[in-house]
Amino acid sequence: MTEPSPDVPGFPFACPMPVEPGDAIQLAHGGGGLLTRKLIDGLFRPAFAARPEELTHDGAVVEIGGARLAFSTDSYVVRPLFFPGGDIGSLAVNGTVNDLAMCGATPLYLSAGLVLEEGFPIADLRRVVESMRRAAVKAGVRLITGDTKVVERGKGDGLYVATSGIGVVAPEVAVGPSRVRPGDKVLLSGDIGRHGIAIMSAREGLGFETAIESDCAPLGRSVAALLRLGADIHCLRDLTRGGLATALIEIAETAAVTIRLDEARVPISAPVRGAAEILGLDPLYIANEGRFVAFVPESAADGALAILRGEAAGAEATVIGTVESPSPAGALIAHTIGGERALGFLTGEQLPRIC
Amino acid sequence: MTEPSPDVPGFPFACPMPVEPGDAIQLAHGGGGLLTRKLIDGLFRPAFAARPEELTHDGAVVEIGGARLAFSTDSYVVRPLFFPGGDIGSLAVNGTVNDLAMCGATPLYLSAGLVLEEGFPIADLRRVVESMRRAAVKAGVRLITGDTKVVERGKGDGLYVATSGIGVVAPEVAVGPSRVRPGDKVLLSGDIGRHGIAIMSAREGLGFETAIESDCAPLGRSVAALLRLGADIHCLRDLTRGGLATALIEIAETAAVTIRLDEARVPISAPVRGAAEILGLDPLYIANEGRFVAFVPESAADGALAILRGEAAGAEATVIGTVESPSPAGALIAHTIGGERALGFLTGEQLPRIC
Repeated sequence: MTEPSPDVPGFPFACPMPVEPGDAIQLAHGGGGLLTRKLIDGLFRPAFAARPEELTHDGAVVEIGGARLAFSTDSYVVRPLFFPGGDIGSLAVNGTVNDLAMCGATPLYLSAGLVLEEGFPIADLRRVVESMRRAAVKAGVRLITGDTKVVERGKGDGLYVATSGIGVVAPEVAVGPSRVRPGDKVLLSGDIGRHGIAIMSAREGLGFETAIESDCAPLGRSVAALLRLGADIHCLRDLTRGGLATALIEIAETAAVTIRLDEARVPISAPVRGAAEILGLDPLYIANEGRFVAFVPESAADGALAILRGEAAGAEATVIGTVESPSPAGALIAHTIGGERALGFLTGEQLPRIC
Repeated sequence: MTEPSPDVPGFPFACPMPVEPGDAIQLAHGGGGLLTRKLIDGLFRPAFAARPEELTHDGAVVEIGGARLAFSTDSYVVRPLFFPGGDIGSLAVNGTVNDLAMCGATPLYLSAGLVLEEGFPIADLRRVVESMRRAAVKAGVRLITGDTKVVERGKGDGLYVATSGIGVVAPEVAVGPSRVRPGDKVLLSGDIGRHGIAIMSAREGLGFETAIESDCAPLGRSVAALLRLGADIHCLRDLTRGGLATALIEIAETAAVTIRLDEARVPISAPVRGAAEILGLDPLYIANEGRFVAFVPESAADGALAILRGEAAGAEATVIGTVESPSPAGALIAHTIGGERALGFLTGEQLPRIC
């Protein structure tokens, strides 16, 4: 669901999607791609950001009373609410925990705001709350404050959840795209594409031969292990809306570098690959909820990789790319057996309401 | 919209509303009254609260790295989005700022999560964002992180906003219902009922003779002034969903006291009183977004009152009641010229989607 656009020179394939946002919100404004970015750059950043690098991704780090805190928020509108490998409750907890972890923080406290639709079964609410509880325990965080609103039938879709989180960042930690340097290695924590395909499959009732479960999981432990290594971790980013490609492009643009992606090394399970082919989706753009990339200096890559592989679900962690000096070919160059392709932002919406 | 219920013995007036929640969410679960409380007590507190006093109102205070922080969240689903005296943007900023202030905190940072409905006019979004910006500047807080999701047409209602906030609490500050003591005076910061009536009037196109504007405003300055006084402030609470009566009942029950309310001293403007009468609403239960009560020892009442009256919109601040030992008559006794009445929680929903 991508197409040529003036913003993505040389973008190599096309399908019919509106490029111009017009004067009304489209689904693609929430997709994490080009329109989301236009909304952030055109509306939110001018209103709220004191410095241009602020509000570029989902967490902020501030100092309060001598403590360095990460603060993050996300709204969850995933459809269906329950899917293989998770539900809106575990997603809302893990998503915010992961945003904090990507700031280099130890996640500590969460809040939750629920928007319920009149008529929503209380049994389902109980199931979601229990899932949030379990996810919070697993991630080592406490949900300490919340709020509930109810809207009339037809003004919601069962349940939307907004979670915010606070974590603490150790004094020596400094992660962010501006620290990425040519020569850095790009590590990926595991196989990609499972969350998006699991949602799509649950939504459309697709009966793939092998059940594909979401990768939804907390990343705090993996990040803490990396930071304990003492290696200089330059940047961390989870691969949610827009997937691996979008995360890498955003980082490359902010760092003013080109990332060369060794596409053949990106782990994608056979069922995900097959499902993506049937659905016409590029796995590099499919959302994940328990996967991240770490940018580290080449000297630290082997140590960092060993740590990632030692974590649950980290068996397939691998080096997938290298940071290079900026190239006129673009921010993200995927290298395959057949040659190279430049990757750009999604201009449309691949899978609405994936998270 | 209240009726006799086993939970509210002797509740004095009645109208037809379901008492039992059944197995599905009703609008009243979001009304701040009895059903909201049942949801909190029956579902959220067992899942998340380590101590019984947690999760009882909209803010939590925690220590991180030596700093004492208040953390709060609220979702806003107000209808219509724009109303006399405010809009969903200023409401979302002030509401969370006020929750922090009620913890005795200096509000510092906010996050915002937006759930947009496909087709929502970008011009309206721009107007809301600008309103949030102005409200944040006025309240002295910075919005530093955010998130946007889009749902399909018919799965939302234009725009829902979830804001969370962080504030810092000075070491000597200790406010909370458990500190309320018999003999304390109850101070009210201004006239009540304007927010609810403004929303109702905008929603139903009611043409009252005098335009009634919402009282939506940040309360951080007033609270900071009270705390600077050095007086022992026992408890602070803003008068949102459920209004003055619900706030007082919650505090009285937690503190195991009875509050005697001098109903004739509660400032209610003539237009609000008239509109409430026409609409059949009890002003004591109407939501406010810029009003609060402070519980202070009798010795500090005059000083605190002078401070409140010195603030913008504080001209009508007054002492409205006294804390007494617990009485079998109930948590909140309203004293009027004609006699006394015991007040209980709303069992139905008075004005859905008031905030």
